[in-house]
Amino acid sequence: MDNFNFYSPTEFVFGNDRENECGSYVKKYGGSKVLIHFGGGSAERSGLLGRVRYSLNKSGISFVELGGVQPNPRDTLVYKGIDLCRSEGVDFILAVGGGSVIDSAKAIAAGVLYDGDFWDFYSGKNIEKALPVGVVLTIAAAGSEGSGDSVITKEDGMLKRGAGSDALRARFSVLNPALTQTLPAYQTACGATDIMAHVFERYFTNTKEVEITDRLCEAVLITMVKETPRVIADPDNYEARANIMWAGMVAHNGIVGVGRSQDWNSHGIEHELSALYDCAHGAGLAVIMPSWMEFVYKHNVMRFCQMATRVFGCQMNFENPEATALEGIHRFRSFLHSIGMPINFAELGAKEEDIPALVEKFGIGDGRTGGFVALSSADVTEIYKIAAKASL
Amino acid sequence: MDNFNFYSPTEFVFGNDRENECGSYVKKYGGSKVLIHFGGGSAERSGLLGRVRYSLNKSGISFVELGGVQPNPRDTLVYKGIDLCRSEGVDFILAVGGGSVIDSAKAIAAGVLYDGDFWDFYSGKNIEKALPVGVVLTIAAAGSEGSGDSVITKEDGMLKRGAGSDALRARFSVLNPALTQTLPAYQTACGATDIMAHVFERYFTNTKEVEITDRLCEAVLITMVKETPRVIADPDNYEARANIMWAGMVAHNGIVGVGRSQDWNSHGIEHELSALYDCAHGAGLAVIMPSWMEFVYKHNVMRFCQMATRVFGCQMNFENPEATALEGIHRFRSFLHSIGMPINFAELGAKEEDIPALVEKFGIGDGRTGGFVALSSADVTEIYKIAAKASL
Repeated sequence: MDNFNFYSPTEFVFGNDRENECGSYVKKYGGSKVLIHFGGGSAERSGLLGRVRYSLNKSGISFVELGGVQPNPRDTLVYKGIDLCRSEGVDFILAVGGGSVIDSAKAIAAGVLYDGDFWDFYSGKNIEKALPVGVVLTIAAAGSEGSGDSVITKEDGMLKRGAGSDALRARFSVLNPALTQTLPAYQTACGATDIMAHVFERYFTNTKEVEITDRLCEAVLITMVKETPRVIADPDNYEARANIMWAGMVAHNGIVGVGRSQDWNSHGIEHELSALYDCAHGAGLAVIMPSWMEFVYKHNVMRFCQMATRVFGCQMNFENPEATALEGIHRFRSFLHSIGMPINFAELGAKEEDIPALVEKFGIGDGRTGGFVALSSADVTEIYKIAAKASL
Repeated sequence: MDNFNFYSPTEFVFGNDRENECGSYVKKYGGSKVLIHFGGGSAERSGLLGRVRYSLNKSGISFVELGGVQPNPRDTLVYKGIDLCRSEGVDFILAVGGGSVIDSAKAIAAGVLYDGDFWDFYSGKNIEKALPVGVVLTIAAAGSEGSGDSVITKEDGMLKRGAGSDALRARFSVLNPALTQTLPAYQTACGATDIMAHVFERYFTNTKEVEITDRLCEAVLITMVKETPRVIADPDNYEARANIMWAGMVAHNGIVGVGRSQDWNSHGIEHELSALYDCAHGAGLAVIMPSWMEFVYKHNVMRFCQMATRVFGCQMNFENPEATALEGIHRFRSFLHSIGMPINFAELGAKEEDIPALVEKFGIGDGRTGGFVALSSADVTEIYKIAAKASL
């Protein structure tokens, strides 16, 4: 096991109706003037924003509001948020939404306390301080409610880049599974795919003898394989939603991936798809991740056999381990298809002729990147090609 | 899933040699005058205390010291520590040791800031504030490095009682698996037993449909079943020690047990053994926990089948589930025996004739206690009787 630090100081406030307490949590964590940050109209229509406002009012906390966060959240709105926070004297940002809203809130939180252009942080500069952020989560997916990460898209050139810092970790996150019951099946499935990808990108490692984190990864994956079809079939299933929501946090706050090399190439390769086509991140991952697996599995056939047997219930073929590895990847892709995810470029709305442009924007040039299998631009091209033509 | 809050703000500093950084972490978390709290002479002889002092000096932090913490840490030393902290103006307590040292440090931390008798906190009073605590852990066992719990024994009457509060959670915990390599096999096995017990007391629940926490519990248990025999056979195995050390934290910081009813009767029933005989807590648990399982398994045979098949690799007997449940309990007890733990009163040094006194001190009188199976005094008597005569 490699040396590591693990720090997840967020207070998770989990369960039905818990958003009604968000005022007291803002107060507990020192907020007196809040920016409520949110996305489209659904938070308003569902009454969620009303309950959040009521809770803040009840706690004597004043607030301003900024909606309009889009999927793949844009730098342009972040600039607007920073200006608003400064002019209104905001000292706490409350994100009401999913990963895009939370990521946008984190970017604003860091930007308000920084003299320069906040995009510096998404170009490699360390974030040392940020306004405190709270979360009321509305979709189990990105894990941003428990992570120190944020991904923002620069509208000029649709450049999608990430930043990470413990300073970005939310002070509290309200996780009410009931808020996810109204999500369309497609978005639910996208979220589930994202959660599984967060685990797989930690699971495929070159670090030896990491039984505890292997088993924790598998715990999340097995849960997702069991619970996702249940919520697709029965969107109102609170218990299944609750299991997925907690799994989504566990998948990405770091605890299942400490002390081991990781490989985030699938995320990076996907980011170019969602940046170019503005497709859902989870949908892009459903196309990319099994394709990445097919390209790299020979690097460690036994690890893919472990996934196949422990996560997808395959019988180990001791005479032909490679067959088991491939069967595991096949079952993963079939699972994604079964929950309504696209599995190739056509289903996603991507075009094979764009592959050179995608590889170009992925931007590794003559270098290589990846903690499990280091990929060249030629390798990434091959993975896009597998993804373009994938079928069951 | 039940509603819950989960809050684990400790920064975990994991890996070889990390104790050499403890000065900078004390500084990071605001300490300027430290009480180094420790147990017997092994921390001195091994050079660990020397490295801790050196690190504090290097960071310009002054300190006083209080050693002598015993297993089942006593109130008498806590009073001494409180006095010392007050007279020396200590603002940070650094526990260098295992669960007993950490628990004693937490009690001192709470007591220093309290006008009354600190024992009030171990008699039910809420702890609202405490001095910050840091940890350099020397045994994987109690999980106190990541929990908000503390157990202290009142010397007058050997009364063992617990307190819990988020205010008691360590600011940072250094987890260096190499520090555990010198532990005798017996202590290593006691620690492993304690870790498994922390998970089982969360695992046996009446809450339905908690797949994610079930699977996380099993992840820790499977890891312990694999890694413990390896460290017993090869005490210097750093990788196995590392897996156990992280498993011990995960087992008890709360993350595997949120949102479900729990049952801590085995811990309570054991506490009377270690209080009366001053035996190791883990050894007492090895005697009590399988006996508790035998007494309660009919309450939910299928849950014990789940443990038997998923944790201990039993084949499910679909014609006779009860046989599978009992086979799982048998394998657990055999496992404990195989790592050198006692499995009955004689091996522990306990006496069957003391059972009425043990039940009396357990102190539920005519009531019942327990979140999985509520036990009466008569039930507890039966469990002690099973434990007295247990064999393989």
